[in-house]
Amino acid sequence: MKAYREMSSNEIKEIYEELKAQYEKSKALGLKLDMSRGKPAIAQLDLGRDFLDCLNKDSDYKSEAGVDVRNYGILDGIPEAKRLMASIMNTQPENVIVCGNASLNIMYDMIARSMIFGVLGETPWCKLDKVKFLCPAPGYDRHFAITESFGIEMITVPMLPTGPDMDMVEDLVSKDETIKGIWCVPKYSNPQGISYSDETVKRFANLKPAAKDFRIFWDNAYAVHDLYQDDKDEILDILSECKKAGNEDMVYEFTSTSKISLAGAGISAVATSANNISMIKKIMTVQTIGYDKVNQLRHVRYFKDMNGIKAHMEKHAALLRPKFEAVLKVLERELGEIGIGSWTTPKGGYFISFETMDGCAKRVIELCKEAGVTMTGAGSTYPYHKDPKDSNIRIAPSFPTPEEMEQATDLFVLCVKLATLEKLMA
Amino acid sequence: MKAYREMSSNEIKEIYEELKAQYEKSKALGLKLDMSRGKPAIAQLDLGRDFLDCLNKDSDYKSEAGVDVRNYGILDGIPEAKRLMASIMNTQPENVIVCGNASLNIMYDMIARSMIFGVLGETPWCKLDKVKFLCPAPGYDRHFAITESFGIEMITVPMLPTGPDMDMVEDLVSKDETIKGIWCVPKYSNPQGISYSDETVKRFANLKPAAKDFRIFWDNAYAVHDLYQDDKDEILDILSECKKAGNEDMVYEFTSTSKISLAGAGISAVATSANNISMIKKIMTVQTIGYDKVNQLRHVRYFKDMNGIKAHMEKHAALLRPKFEAVLKVLERELGEIGIGSWTTPKGGYFISFETMDGCAKRVIELCKEAGVTMTGAGSTYPYHKDPKDSNIRIAPSFPTPEEMEQATDLFVLCVKLATLEKLMA
Repeated sequence: MKAYREMSSNEIKEIYEELKAQYEKSKALGLKLDMSRGKPAIAQLDLGRDFLDCLNKDSDYKSEAGVDVRNYGILDGIPEAKRLMASIMNTQPENVIVCGNASLNIMYDMIARSMIFGVLGETPWCKLDKVKFLCPAPGYDRHFAITESFGIEMITVPMLPTGPDMDMVEDLVSKDETIKGIWCVPKYSNPQGISYSDETVKRFANLKPAAKDFRIFWDNAYAVHDLYQDDKDEILDILSECKKAGNEDMVYEFTSTSKISLAGAGISAVATSANNISMIKKIMTVQTIGYDKVNQLRHVRYFKDMNGIKAHMEKHAALLRPKFEAVLKVLERELGEIGIGSWTTPKGGYFISFETMDGCAKRVIELCKEAGVTMTGAGSTYPYHKDPKDSNIRIAPSFPTPEEMEQATDLFVLCVKLATLEKLMA
Repeated sequence: MKAYREMSSNEIKEIYEELKAQYEKSKALGLKLDMSRGKPAIAQLDLGRDFLDCLNKDSDYKSEAGVDVRNYGILDGIPEAKRLMASIMNTQPENVIVCGNASLNIMYDMIARSMIFGVLGETPWCKLDKVKFLCPAPGYDRHFAITESFGIEMITVPMLPTGPDMDMVEDLVSKDETIKGIWCVPKYSNPQGISYSDETVKRFANLKPAAKDFRIFWDNAYAVHDLYQDDKDEILDILSECKKAGNEDMVYEFTSTSKISLAGAGISAVATSANNISMIKKIMTVQTIGYDKVNQLRHVRYFKDMNGIKAHMEKHAALLRPKFEAVLKVLERELGEIGIGSWTTPKGGYFISFETMDGCAKRVIELCKEAGVTMTGAGSTYPYHKDPKDSNIRIAPSFPTPEEMEQATDLFVLCVKLATLEKLMA
C-alpha cells in the first residue's frame, strides 16, 4: 500500500470515493459498539462469580483481630485489608488507609481537604489566589475533571515513552510555588499504557518543589493489570524512593480493586507517609465512622494475598489479551503501511492510545459516531478537553467481545482514513 | 426514700459513706461494660445472617432496568434502591440520591461542597468571614464535630419536648444571614429520643431565613427505629411541607440502613429538591463514578419494600426493648424518689438522655469509668463539648445484653448518687 502523503490529488480523490462508499455501507449496518469506556466485560465480572459467596450466613464475620466487621468502628481499615492493598502497591501496611469503593473519591477528597484545611499546616488552597497542577497528557480525563472543578489551573506536560517530561516537571515545580501537585498514572498509563522508567520515578522522588505542600498524586490504578505474564512492566516503589530522597511526605499513592474484583463494588486505598496518614485520619474521623469493612473482609477472604490477586489477574489477562490483539491486528494491517497514524502497544492496563494526523481526531470520532461506534470524546485526554493538536484518541478494548472489537476497529480505521483524506484534500 | 435536698448534712455524710463503700466493692468487681456507643448488638447484626446470601454466585446481578450492578455506572443509585430509601424517608424516589455506606459522609460532603462551591450559585462559605450553624442541644456529637472542623461557629438552641426552640430558631435565622444551617434529628433525636411535633416541622418548613443558602440538615437517622409497634411517633414529611411553604430548596434529608441491615455496611441516601439534586449530581459526577450498586441491589433483594423493612425493624425492636426497659427500671427504682436526676423515656431510637443535678455530669462519668463502665464523654452532646450546665449524659443501651445493661445502670445510679452527694457536701 502506498503512503497517503505520497499520493497525487487524483489518487487521493479516487481512494476517498471508494472508502466513502464503503463507509456508507457500514453505516447501513446499524452498528452499536462502544470503544469508549475502560470498563470490564461481563466475562471478567463473572470471573468472580463466587466472590460474594465467600461471606455468607455461616461466616464468622470476624477480622483477624476478632472485630465483627458488620459493626461500626475501625476508621482506616482492618489490618488484613491494609496488608492486601499494601501488597498491590508494593508497600507496607502501615502506610495504608483502606477506604470505600472508589480510589477516585479518595483523590477527590485529598484535593478537597487541601483546599479547605491545607496540607500539613500550610495555607488552605482555597485561600490562595492561584493554585496550579501539572497534568501529563494524554492522561485520564477524570483526573483533569477534578482539578478543573476546583478551579485549579492545569498545565499540560508532554508524555514521553519514559513517562512525563521530567526536565519540564523539575523546572516548573522548582520555580513556581503555586504548583501544588501533579497527576500520575505510573504503570500502564491511561491512555498510552506507558510505564514510568526507573529514572523517571527517581527523578520524581528527588523533586525539589518550591511549594512545601506540593504533592504527587500517584494513581497506581493498573498496578497488577498485566496482559502478559512473561513480559510485564515493573515500576519502582515511589514511597520508598521518596523516603530515600528525604521527600517522604511528597506523595499520595492510590489504588483500588475495581478492575480486580468488581467495578464499583471493590475497595480502594491510599498509601503515604506517617505524617500524611495522621493528617488524613484526623480529617477522616470527622467525615465518617468508617468504610465498609464487610467488603474489606470479603476481599481478604477471597483473594487471601498477593498470590491470589496474581492468579485472578491472569484470568483477567486471558480475557483482555485477545481484545487488545484484535485492535492491534487491524491497526497494523490497515494503517501499518499508509503512514497516517501511530499507536501504542501496551503490555497492560485498559487502553490503547492512537495518534491521528494533526487535526483529525475530532473528525474521526464524529465519523465513528455516525456509523454507530462510540469512542471517548475527542480532547478528553487533555486538560480542559483541549487536545492542542487534535490528534489523540483513546481506544478502550475491554468491554466488547474480541469479534466486536475487530468489527469496531475496522470501522475506526476506515474513519481514520476518511478523516485523513478529507484533511489532505482540504 | 427521702429526697437528697431535704437531708441534713449529717444524713448526707452518712449516706455518702455507705454508698462510697458500696462503690469500692463494685470497683473491685473489675466490670468492663460500655454504655457509650449507639451501635447494634451482635444479636441485631445476626438478624440479617442471610442478608449477604441474597446475592450469590447464582444471582443475575441485574437491576430492574437490566443494568449489571457489578460494573461501573449509575451515579445516583439504581431506581429500586431510590424507591426503598424514599419509602424510609416517606418521600418520592425522584427526590433521592443513594450513596455509600454512611449518611454522615453525605452530610460532611454537603458541607464541604457548600464551603468550596457555594449553594445554588451563592458565595462559597469558605470565602465568607463568618459562617454559623444552629445546633439544637443536647444533640449528636458527630454533627457538631463536622461543623467545628470546618470552622463554622455553632450556636446552641435548647431542645424542648416538641423539638428545637422554634421561637429562637425563627428569630435567629430571619435576622442573621451568616447562619447557614441547622442540625436536626427529627425523630427519636439523639440523645433525648424526642420526635418533632407537627407544629415544629411546619415552623421549620415556613422559616424565612435571611440567608438564601440556609439549609436544614434533617438527619432522619431513626425513621423506622420504633421500639413499640403500637405506640410509635410519626413525624411530618419535611420535604412536602417545605414545598407547600414555597421553601422547596431549604432542606437536605438524610437516612441510612446502618441500623437496619449492617452498621457500616449499609447504604445511605439524601433526599432534597430537584434544584439541589441537580447541584449535587453535578459535583458528584466529578467525585466518583458511582457508589456500590451491588450493596444497593442486595438491600432491595433482601428487604424488597417498606413492609420488609418494617418486619425487620420489629425484630430489632424486640431485642432493644428489654435493654431500654432494664435501664429505665433501674433509674426509676433508684432515683425516682430521691429527686437527683431526670431522664427521657423514648419510644424509639438508640439513646436515653439523663440530666444530673447541675455540675455533676463530668464527675458521674469519671466515677463510672473508674469502676469499669464507659459512658459517652461528658459535654459531647453540646457544641464544642461544652455542656453549659454540666448535666447531660447520653446512655446507649443497645450494645450490651439486658443483664449487662442492668448491671451497668446499677453502677451508673450509684455514681449519680455519689457525685450528687459530693456536690451537696461541697
